Amino acid sequence: MNIEMIEAAAARAQGVTRRTPLLSSPALDALAGRRVLVKPECLQHTGSFKFRGAWSALTALPEATRANGVIAYSSGNHAQGVALAAQRLGIPAVIIMPSDAPAAKIDGTRSYGAEVVLYDRGHEDREEIGDRIAKDRKLTLVRPFDEPQVIAGQGTCGLEIAQQAAEHGVTHADVLVCCGGGGLTAGIALALEARAPGLRARPAEPAEFDDTARSLRSGRRERNAREAGGLCDAILTPQPGELTFPILSRLCGPGVTASDDEVLQAMSLAVRQLKVVAEPGGAVALAAALFRRDEITSDTVICTISGGNLDPEVMIRALSG
Amino acid sequence: MNIEMIEAAAARAQGVTRRTPLLSSPALDALAGRRVLVKPECLQHTGSFKFRGAWSALTALPEATRANGVIAYSSGNHAQGVALAAQRLGIPAVIIMPSDAPAAKIDGTRSYGAEVVLYDRGHEDREEIGDRIAKDRKLTLVRPFDEPQVIAGQGTCGLEIAQQAAEHGVTHADVLVCCGGGGLTAGIALALEARAPGLRARPAEPAEFDDTARSLRSGRRERNAREAGGLCDAILTPQPGELTFPILSRLCGPGVTASDDEVLQAMSLAVRQLKVVAEPGGAVALAAALFRRDEITSDTVICTISGGNLDPEVMIRALSG
Repeated sequence: MNIEMIEAAAARAQGVTRRTPLLSSPALDALAGRRVLVKPECLQHTGSFKFRGAWSALTALPEATRANGVIAYSSGNHAQGVALAAQRLGIPAVIIMPSDAPAAKIDGTRSYGAEVVLYDRGHEDREEIGDRIAKDRKLTLVRPFDEPQVIAGQGTCGLEIAQQAAEHGVTHADVLVCCGGGGLTAGIALALEARAPGLRARPAEPAEFDDTARSLRSGRRERNAREAGGLCDAILTPQPGELTFPILSRLCGPGVTASDDEVLQAMSLAVRQLKVVAEPGGAVALAAALFRRDEITSDTVICTISGGNLDPEVMIRALSG
Repeated sequence: MNIEMIEAAAARAQGVTRRTPLLSSPALDALAGRRVLVKPECLQHTGSFKFRGAWSALTALPEATRANGVIAYSSGNHAQGVALAAQRLGIPAVIIMPSDAPAAKIDGTRSYGAEVVLYDRGHEDREEIGDRIAKDRKLTLVRPFDEPQVIAGQGTCGLEIAQQAAEHGVTHADVLVCCGGGGLTAGIALALEARAPGLRARPAEPAEFDDTARSLRSGRRERNAREAGGLCDAILTPQPGELTFPILSRLCGPGVTASDDEVLQAMSLAVRQLKVVAEPGGAVALAAALFRRDEITSDTVICTISGGNLDPEVMIRALSG
């Protein structure tokens, strides 16, 4: 994993992925007690950053392999990213999704032409199911984060952050990244190391699913006590990835966390102040920036809003709070 | 009014206003029966395109005049645009707002440091009030649309649409613009005439406040039967402007309209498919693109989402529909 792979992924994505803007609002600055810049990846194709990694991975495959099709397991955002990337490349895609994923994500995945296979998150192992189908149909498995070309694709978001921070005159900042398996965080960290060394990536997680923060403290991959049931469905991974963790461990600052209630408040503020839709897992970095200000020392904080795919009831809940 | 004024406004706005992206979603294309590209001006500073015109007008004033301060009357979006532009230039701003404007807009205007004066929309004339205070305090009145430098500023949105349409390979399209007094529509129409002549601006209005559509048909400025009470608070102007109407009349295609129910559906779809927040008056162009498809003939339709400032209850209503 290196910056050349990220630059190559950016070249393959030219004219395909969106360069999302960098947003801000005086009201959020006042709440956070510092300048807050927000990278709304909810505005990316399929409503999350995952399209970046999916496009990178699929376009990096040898053409003959790619033509057989791909398979992925995902709670919904990686699913939609792989489905749309496959559709655009004209190849088949099978997506293994938990049966309790938001309906909007299951419907979205199907709308991009993928075949969806549902499994029970509590009792079945999605990786085992994925491996079996992949073998049967000669599909290439596109892992959601432990896959170098996926990490490289997510890193293109970091290249944009480096450029846009410079355009805003920002040379030093903590960059809070919504973190599940760590693909986006690792990709951004690698891009910043090379292109904006004064910017430091830090993983942001739900308070009860803080495996990455604890792993960074202990120096080894820790597991969450639970693997389901939290509000932030997009980032409920059991532990940091095998490939991502060494990158995070080398490059990232301490993890930050936010409670579900803080996440809902951040979702409401994203609507009111930034006019963008953040899903719970996509709002955890903004929530940490706004409500855990004592854990941040930089004058400017940059946060990803990693996705905006949610069932409307969840947004109604956030706005009613 | 000409393209040189718009280009000059764009130069003054360099590094100040945001270049909003152009968004799309396969689901919206399917609904509309054609390609739909959306220009989300809700992501502009202050949550609407109005900051463009305000910045243009204030930066075009002679410095000695500008230093005395400015005054504006507005249902809320022009108010916030002028307030923030004044704050950034370090000058005083007085804003005359209707007492029934959304609380979010009144609060927003105050948060940018402006002095807010409320009036009764049914019984008082905002222009009369504005003129009196302006004379008393030597403030320069910044009209919301009938002001050349404001129209020039809104035209910078049209320059971006011309560039971005070309980037998307679009040379012919109807451009539906949410229309109140016609400042944004006129500015965009002028920019497209010069920079993208295959793109045609068309005003979009609420069905019961379709003064511009009727005026384009009759060839003279028609008035609405009512001046308040509609869902789309941002664009409930009594009739097209004196300066804007001749421009619309010369350059625009026929007006389109949408019902309040269609506007609420468009707001919900903007959240689900584009992950952006459209206020009712900002969703009317998208509503027309999606639900009045028989009135559009071009293969691609471009719509502005002109603003996203709304009280949360309105969004909850849209999402609950």
